[in-house]
Amino acid sequence: MPTARARKVGAETRRRGEHFVRKVYAATLEQLAAGGFDRLTVPDVAARAGVNKTSVYRRWPTKADLVRDALHASMGHSQELPDTGNVRADMIEMARLAAGFVESPLGLGVLRTLLTEGANPEVASLATSMFRQEQAKAVHEIIKRAIARGDLPEGTNTRLLLSTVAGALMHRLLVEHGRLTPSFVDGVIDLVLFGACKR
Amino acid sequence: MPTARARKVGAETRRRGEHFVRKVYAATLEQLAAGGFDRLTVPDVAARAGVNKTSVYRRWPTKADLVRDALHASMGHSQELPDTGNVRADMIEMARLAAGFVESPLGLGVLRTLLTEGANPEVASLATSMFRQEQAKAVHEIIKRAIARGDLPEGTNTRLLLSTVAGALMHRLLVEHGRLTPSFVDGVIDLVLFGACKR
Repeated sequence: MPTARARKVGAETRRRGEHFVRKVYAATLEQLAAGGFDRLTVPDVAARAGVNKTSVYRRWPTKADLVRDALHASMGHSQELPDTGNVRADMIEMARLAAGFVESPLGLGVLRTLLTEGANPEVASLATSMFRQEQAKAVHEIIKRAIARGDLPEGTNTRLLLSTVAGALMHRLLVEHGRLTPSFVDGVIDLVLFGACKR
Repeated sequence: MPTARARKVGAETRRRGEHFVRKVYAATLEQLAAGGFDRLTVPDVAARAGVNKTSVYRRWPTKADLVRDALHASMGHSQELPDTGNVRADMIEMARLAAGFVESPLGLGVLRTLLTEGANPEVASLATSMFRQEQAKAVHEIIKRAIARGDLPEGTNTRLLLSTVAGALMHRLLVEHGRLTPSFVDGVIDLVLFGACKR
């Protein structure tokens, strides 16, 4: 059993470690948003974060590892899973969170990079892994609960729902150059849940 | 009244004019898809089309004029308005045409340019004008007919429908790096028309 002193040292080390990781992630996302994946370098990230580049390489052997982890952390962070007991309210909450992220300068920069440099296989794999692992997992959970409650039919196509909602936000923002207002976001959710033919 | 000889000369001039325009448009879209808007130049387009650059400048004073007209012509061309008497069939036909265009190397290049260079105000204005003038007009017509037949309620939000369908295709293609199969395209149309909550 560790002594009080050893526990204190352990907690301090952990706190420093978390602080280090947060600083490196923030610097990574800023670099990514500002200059894209291709021009991002580990030494630049380390300099911006004010840390030693060797310590960065020790945790993330390649810049793809670093960017993947930084993106996953930022997505996980911005998306606490809503659980209101109502599928429309859950989906609206998720979609508004996503809209807030992609409308921020950081989120917009990241989104542009994923699209712009999609021909780079490393970037393509980042984009699909973010999409599949982070967004899809969260929406899948919301849909699973809605099916269990009888709000949605068995066999609801979660992936199609997700592509459609995320795509509508993306199109509005990047092609139409419009704002992701709450009324637009809610309109998209109502459309995919109830359809234009309703009433 | 023109003589037969004058009519023949007139028809010949028109034919040559159309041939000229077609060659210039094709060269413009190829340049755009290959290198983007920023790097496109009128002299390069003229060289690729095998025409005199002065003749190009005479018709299109700026490259933005040229690109706008070339894009509008290509969209108009690929989108003969479907009129099957059934809103689902009409929308599926439109969406499959759009999917075919953006999955072609040319369409994909053009789409990437509109997204990548969206920070350039000339490109942003091109993207919105294409979206508003070409796509929106066609979908609006289909929706208007569907409302007249009673297939869709009065006040159906055409623009929301369009953003959602176009966005779903774009997301699937550029973020998920998936194919726009007929079953995916039809699934999107069924989702926006009937909603996930149907049955």
